[in-house]
Amino acid sequence: MTSQALRLKATVNCDMGEGFSLYTIGDDESLMKHIHLANIACGFHASDFSIMNKTVLLAKQHGVAVGAHPSLPDLQGFGRREMAIEPDELKSCFIYQVGALCGFLKLHGLPLNHIKQHGAVYGQSSRSLPLARAAVEVAKVFRSADNQDVAFVGIAGSAHQTAAEEAGVRFIPEWFADLDYSAEGKLLITKCVRVTRILNEKKVTTIAGTHLSLGENIREVSICCHSDTPGAVEVAQLVKKLVDESNNSAGFV
Amino acid sequence: MTSQALRLKATVNCDMGEGFSLYTIGDDESLMKHIHLANIACGFHASDFSIMNKTVLLAKQHGVAVGAHPSLPDLQGFGRREMAIEPDELKSCFIYQVGALCGFLKLHGLPLNHIKQHGAVYGQSSRSLPLARAAVEVAKVFRSADNQDVAFVGIAGSAHQTAAEEAGVRFIPEWFADLDYSAEGKLLITKCVRVTRILNEKKVTTIAGTHLSLGENIREVSICCHSDTPGAVEVAQLVKKLVDESNNSAGFV
Amino acid sequence: MTSQALRLKATVNCDMGEGFSLYTIGDDESLMKHIHLANIACGFHASDFSIMNKTVLLAKQHGVAVGAHPSLPDLQGFGRREMAIEPDELKSCFIYQVGALCGFLKLHGLPLNHIKQHGAVYGQSSRSLPLARAAVEVAKVFRSADNQDVAFVGIAGSAHQTAAEEAGVRFIPEWFADLDYSAEGKLLITKCVRVTRILNEKKVTTIAGTHLSLGENIREVSICCHSDTPGAVEVAQLVKKLVDESNNSAGFV
Amino acid sequence: MTSQALRLKATVNCDMGEGFSLYTIGDDESLMKHIHLANIACGFHASDFSIMNKTVLLAKQHGVAVGAHPSLPDLQGFGRREMAIEPDELKSCFIYQVGALCGFLKLHGLPLNHIKQHGAVYGQSSRSLPLARAAVEVAKVFRSADNQDVAFVGIAGSAHQTAAEEAGVRFIPEWFADLDYSAEGKLLITKCVRVTRILNEKKVTTIAGTHLSLGENIREVSICCHSDTPGAVEVAQLVKKLVDESNNSAGFV
Repeated sequence: MTSQALRLKATVNCDMGEGFSLYTIGDDESLMKHIHLANIACGFHASDFSIMNKTVLLAKQHGVAVGAHPSLPDLQGFGRREMAIEPDELKSCFIYQVGALCGFLKLHGLPLNHIKQHGAVYGQSSRSLPLARAAVEVAKVFRSADNQDVAFVGIAGSAHQTAAEEAGVRFIPEWFADLDYSAEGKLLITKCVRVTRILNEKKVTTIAGTHLSLGENIREVSICCHSDTPGAVEVAQLVKKLVDESNNSAGFV
Repeated sequence: MTSQALRLKATVNCDMGEGFSLYTIGDDESLMKHIHLANIACGFHASDFSIMNKTVLLAKQHGVAVGAHPSLPDLQGFGRREMAIEPDELKSCFIYQVGALCGFLKLHGLPLNHIKQHGAVYGQSSRSLPLARAAVEVAKVFRSADNQDVAFVGIAGSAHQTAAEEAGVRFIPEWFADLDYSAEGKLLITKCVRVTRILNEKKVTTIAGTHLSLGENIREVSICCHSDTPGAVEVAQLVKKLVDESNNSAGFV
Repeated sequence: MTSQALRLKATVNCDMGEGFSLYTIGDDESLMKHIHLANIACGFHASDFSIMNKTVLLAKQHGVAVGAHPSLPDLQGFGRREMAIEPDELKSCFIYQVGALCGFLKLHGLPLNHIKQHGAVYGQSSRSLPLARAAVEVAKVFRSADNQDVAFVGIAGSAHQTAAEEAGVRFIPEWFADLDYSAEGKLLITKCVRVTRILNEKKVTTIAGTHLSLGENIREVSICCHSDTPGAVEVAQLVKKLVDESNNSAGFV
Repeated sequence: MTSQALRLKATVNCDMGEGFSLYTIGDDESLMKHIHLANIACGFHASDFSIMNKTVLLAKQHGVAVGAHPSLPDLQGFGRREMAIEPDELKSCFIYQVGALCGFLKLHGLPLNHIKQHGAVYGQSSRSLPLARAAVEVAKVFRSADNQDVAFVGIAGSAHQTAAEEAGVRFIPEWFADLDYSAEGKLLITKCVRVTRILNEKKVTTIAGTHLSLGENIREVSICCHSDTPGAVEVAQLVKKLVDESNNSAGFV
């Protein structure tokens, strides 16, 4: 089907398992029903071994694909402070976290679907090719070792995409649907229309107003819904509905 | 060769990579030459992502088999404080750590050889069958997932052995050669003679003076050399020499 | 006034500032209106430097007396796991935490009112006189240095009371009003009646059914309301009302 | 005496107590004999409650003045990674650490002499006036509360000095004597001659070659000796000898 070749598949992704100790953030149980990809915290900005176990199991129960959501080592700052870190150090930092998550994936018989960086380092590595390369190499390590097609989720047109394409790692660009549903329902719909346009035309309008082509290799994009905003569950539900309809009309299973 | 069937293979194991941040403990570079198995710290009582990376690489360079050395979550106490922990919690705690180590094993193309618990929990689980079972299950998870024969190293005749045998996990009993070489060379030799006897007769004398048979399933024992005692390198060197000679005379490669 | 001599003053205390990073537990802003003493977490089971600052300021704004709520070093376990710890180590562990809290008290111009241990170590030290003594010595260190009458809050008739009395540290026994208000309003009132009896007769009924005299030195008791139970604010409000009435009728200001 | 008015008093300072758990760095016991001021780590880049207790006691035994050596929250990175942190957050971060140290000072009956920042934040705050002000305010909090003349140690001519002078906090500029004694004895002596010149003329030659006047308010400078370089003890010993002679000849006690 020609439309399939032209159009992009879309998914909804959400950061999951970001509690710690007795603390919880976000209604993971409700959200897990409305997403395709779960980015699971690995203990460096949030989560711990008990929460990781529960979150991987919850994803399995809902048929949600699991990715690792590694962070700078900054539990007290929730990984939101930029930090001076060398690429080699970052690579080891991520291998540790992704490896730890893979322990729970083994326990529950799931593959590693993708890696998406958390917080400050997500931004840092979008601007620094050496940091982006370090992060992408981690996807490659887990891909080769376990013979899994581990994707790298990041910002289109940034160092994320460059590093992934250099390394031959499947890249999934993502956009944010990060809105207060009750207050901004209109805005959300506008945004979703924009997402639909991306799916159809493989082009994204940048902040500067120019059109950025996503390139030939991109087969899939993802919409990120945050778990800790008011109306998070409703936002995810609506976005997933739009995304599933778009996928269906394009002939994706 | 009949002697091979009757006798036990022996190895020398040592806790490795127990530095943290800028800190170092033990002369890993020298010791790595004189051991067969490295029990590598996983960040909960010692080590961090950078040190784990270096230590796995060092083991690879010396052809040393790598095992995980997980601990209770107690970095400040070096994992030496007993802690009230539920079996399920311990299992998740170990899966996290062993998984993290496996990340570095994937990076360097090595298999996971064994699991040996660290410090306080080593003792706790030797007396508690539920804790020992939790630890053994972790070996099983990594064995099944990666199709590797992950062994469980522990104390002969304790809950370690019972849990491993119940679960069909290969058990390696270990003894300690934990001596100041300069002061106690004689004692060391006595100890080594005793070890040789174990290898020949598959029997160990308990503290109570009785003879404990190791059972039919045991094919291998390990002598643990500590890295942070005076003369650690010389002790390891001597013990490895004795062990290699014993292995050779029994026809082990 | 004779009634004052015979009766006990009472307060309501509550653990406060038990969030961490972005996480919150309990509605501190509402609860702070309904308590006399705040036990403020010191970063070892919960809280961090930013939350401690906010919580001390909140207590000041409501005229609530501030105490330290130190814990075993166990952030991931919320201080709820018993841990093998030596008295000397515990003393240093608490001096660190109480000192840190005192930094924020200095910043906001408040005195240190009391020390109440958190979680597992609260129970451990109630049964172990050496641990209780270590904890009480910490109250003494901060009392002497800053010339403040730092009290020690704990369980009547336990090692807490023994250690405090030995050391000449003011002891405040506490009881728990730890109930779901909506479901158990009746039980709460029963409990409060019991509390009123303690205030009048200086006697407490133990689990074994016997009557324990609190001793001549006890001038004050405290009722502990937890912050994380359903109806926590309503429970605190009701208990404080009863306690304030009792204090008023006894002529306490 | 006129010479006293014109000349500067000098001290030798050294970072102390930078071990952690079982780890040690530097020969604190030997070094403590050859310094005037100890900058004691507070648990965020190094140290823990047990080591802080021992280190404060060691300083007391040698009559060494104790200062706090607070850091960014980065134990794994030894406080050497720059981190994006807001001034308010930094202030709370330092109040926590300095307060914790003051707990041990109370225990051993010592005053807080000074504050000197550690590692990355030392450099960051030398270039950022808002960060420097946040750090200086911490000195002010502990000065006012305990009626102690807490000094602020930092880089002459940097935001450190500006912020301290703005706030009326006593500022002590410091220089580094960070040399391998055996290899560079000559360089050390050159450096010490330069230090002597500073003491006499109150002027320092900057990297750019210009002369920077230290200003009228500066009464004291400090030479920093590191604890973890080869020959650290010998360097400290020599520098202290020169410094003591200079102080004596200027009539300082």
